[in-house]
Amino acid sequence: MVGEPESLFSEEPLKIRIERHNFDRLLMLSDGVFAIAITLLALDLRLPEHWDGSAGQLIHASGRPLIGYLFGFGLVGAFWFMHRRMFAQLARVDLAITMLNLLLLGLVGLTPFIARMIAEAGPNRAIGFYLAAVASVLGSIALIRFWGAARPRLLHDGVDNKQWAIDGGFLAAAALMLGGIGMWSIANHAPIPSNGFAVVIVLMVVGKQFVRRRRKR
Amino acid sequence: MVGEPESLFSEEPLKIRIERHNFDRLLMLSDGVFAIAITLLALDLRLPEHWDGSAGQLIHASGRPLIGYLFGFGLVGAFWFMHRRMFAQLARVDLAITMLNLLLLGLVGLTPFIARMIAEAGPNRAIGFYLAAVASVLGSIALIRFWGAARPRLLHDGVDNKQWAIDGGFLAAAALMLGGIGMWSIANHAPIPSNGFAVVIVLMVVGKQFVRRRRKR
Amino acid sequence: MVGEPESLFSEEPLKIRIERHNFDRLLMLSDGVFAIAITLLALDLRLPEHWDGSAGQLIHASGRPLIGYLFGFGLVGAFWFMHRRMFAQLARVDLAITMLNLLLLGLVGLTPFIARMIAEAGPNRAIGFYLAAVASVLGSIALIRFWGAARPRLLHDGVDNKQWAIDGGFLAAAALMLGGIGMWSIANHAPIPSNGFAVVIVLMVVGKQFVRRRRKR
Amino acid sequence: MVGEPESLFSEEPLKIRIERHNFDRLLMLSDGVFAIAITLLALDLRLPEHWDGSAGQLIHASGRPLIGYLFGFGLVGAFWFMHRRMFAQLARVDLAITMLNLLLLGLVGLTPFIARMIAEAGPNRAIGFYLAAVASVLGSIALIRFWGAARPRLLHDGVDNKQWAIDGGFLAAAALMLGGIGMWSIANHAPIPSNGFAVVIVLMVVGKQFVRRRRKR
Repeated sequence: MVGEPESLFSEEPLKIRIERHNFDRLLMLSDGVFAIAITLLALDLRLPEHWDGSAGQLIHASGRPLIGYLFGFGLVGAFWFMHRRMFAQLARVDLAITMLNLLLLGLVGLTPFIARMIAEAGPNRAIGFYLAAVASVLGSIALIRFWGAARPRLLHDGVDNKQWAIDGGFLAAAALMLGGIGMWSIANHAPIPSNGFAVVIVLMVVGKQFVRRRRKR
Repeated sequence: MVGEPESLFSEEPLKIRIERHNFDRLLMLSDGVFAIAITLLALDLRLPEHWDGSAGQLIHASGRPLIGYLFGFGLVGAFWFMHRRMFAQLARVDLAITMLNLLLLGLVGLTPFIARMIAEAGPNRAIGFYLAAVASVLGSIALIRFWGAARPRLLHDGVDNKQWAIDGGFLAAAALMLGGIGMWSIANHAPIPSNGFAVVIVLMVVGKQFVRRRRKR
Repeated sequence: MVGEPESLFSEEPLKIRIERHNFDRLLMLSDGVFAIAITLLALDLRLPEHWDGSAGQLIHASGRPLIGYLFGFGLVGAFWFMHRRMFAQLARVDLAITMLNLLLLGLVGLTPFIARMIAEAGPNRAIGFYLAAVASVLGSIALIRFWGAARPRLLHDGVDNKQWAIDGGFLAAAALMLGGIGMWSIANHAPIPSNGFAVVIVLMVVGKQFVRRRRKR
Repeated sequence: MVGEPESLFSEEPLKIRIERHNFDRLLMLSDGVFAIAITLLALDLRLPEHWDGSAGQLIHASGRPLIGYLFGFGLVGAFWFMHRRMFAQLARVDLAITMLNLLLLGLVGLTPFIARMIAEAGPNRAIGFYLAAVASVLGSIALIRFWGAARPRLLHDGVDNKQWAIDGGFLAAAALMLGGIGMWSIANHAPIPSNGFAVVIVLMVVGKQFVRRRRKR
């Protein structure tokens, strides 16, 4: 980064240098938070009090925490994957995207807490909060997509900003559905009925197909 | 970094290589500490003893820790933001900036402890220590700004070192005000009176306007 | 990464930029997880209740955790080493390698849990789970090797994809052997007989020699 | 890193690519471990049981942990500083340096444990272990210096490998002295006499002067 000491810097190079610095460090911070969230998930895996070395006792005592680990890991992994795909198409970041990304990282940092819910209270009780967490992360990714669609200067030249708006819309719809179901589950103190889940998944698959078809045209 | 194996290295390239290495690694260490401080904040979020799955019980038991998380997250996020803006304008780092930055990281590493104070003792009791922490971080950023202003060689060629001195002065003034209020609150065992806060915020906004106006001239 | 703002981006540059972004961020996430797994291992090292400052009491109380730390550290270090050697030969990553790598990171994230097993229950009881963890990581590395061998486009041009298949086969065989021994130990509640270990190590050394000899031809 | 997809790769570029990959990832892993070790130090800072918000009660209860934090932070910061200075002069890393660096990281990862010793048992009891930890890290840095001095191919072309041998010798001497004092303190269950410390510090300052003088010739 100290790379060009003999070149004559004009006002423009400083601007470019700041843009690159801002972009790179946002990603360094983000990947750090993702990596730590993944690894902290395993901190709650505790052994049974007087473990005799058997797998049965281990699963009996650590079964729920292991399920919490799997759910949390899948969540952080999926968020990281969506984050990587989105930022691969961004050329630079502005103040709004930095702020939205910090919001996203704050939500990712809460994932170990959600995993702990599943570990201690079981999936049925925690599922509402789990869905609410998924929905809020999807929502913040949708906001970044919308912002990028409205400011094509931020996108790589080869990227279609209409596609960003459509992807953002799809994510926002998914966030609203999952968040609604989660809030309903929290408010009613009830596990999610499986047919409700089935409807959502069908809707998401159909919507994804619709988004993909449009992309190819 | 092993990039130029066929070029004939003179004394100068080693110097440049060391400068780039020093700069890059300071940022890698810093972003690592920022990322971990953000994620560790959530470690103190514990579930109620016999959680029944309701949001009410959760907020009752985890309400203060959640406030601690929000305060701590806002703090680390704001420090990272100021750190990124400052280092985007630096071309290289010397021993003094490395040391001041390590001091800054040591203070950032204490943020989870401050968040724990808010979580366990409530915002009213912890606010003095919170302000003292903010003040010491602002103070160390101010010291880096002053140092950079006095050594323009460290700044990117497009950067005005007078502006660095002014920004440093603004940060130092803010650090003194917030630190003073914090120390007063700690010494007197008293929460901050809200009109005291109002005066500080008005002063900071006015000062910020003054700094901005000067920048445009 | 914002490097070329004046160049005219065609469809190809976006594709290359996405490839580089995907590759770099996979490594940033991976090294973050490896680094944290190493450091979290030491979290379980606790002092004796009323420590008198003597080394004897320390070893008596923290001896097992220290063994757990050594085993865990050796494990994460070896995995990181194999990971680095493999990705040094990869030119780009696709969806499958990303997914397999996430699986690998999820297993690496479990290492502190395995170290805790050794710390609390002693090596004899935990060895089965330790071997199962080693086997699953080796297995996921083997899968990445097989995938790379089948898609030479992902490999650096100077890399022989047949060698990748052979290395993958060697790792898969080692994973099957170690995993089998581990499962046997878990199922039978028994420590590993030392002659069983000796046979496995002889087989692995012989196999490694065979793989190396073929490489030189 | 996927940077040159149209160039015709020969055997040589793969070798260079592997060297860069190995170098960069060793530093990414190292800075991750340093950053986490710094931040984990603060995890042991606990509030007093029924904190009344006063600074006095806080210092009374958290005074020792805060001293542990300062000692640990100074240690990790100093190690990181020496690590950065050394690797800025290295052009590439081989197997031996990778292994020695992993050993170094394993020792850095133990720093929070040493800080916990100081926090729980006080500096007097822990000082022997603290010095032993310092000595083992200095020793592993000395080994890397000796290795680099013996293999000038690994050093940047502008670096004098004799200087590396001299610096390594100085570090090795310091490690032996500090380690000896630490072992004596552990074996005799005794705090370090202050005049013993004074002799060591005088010897180190004189030695450092000698090393510096030789460098200028």
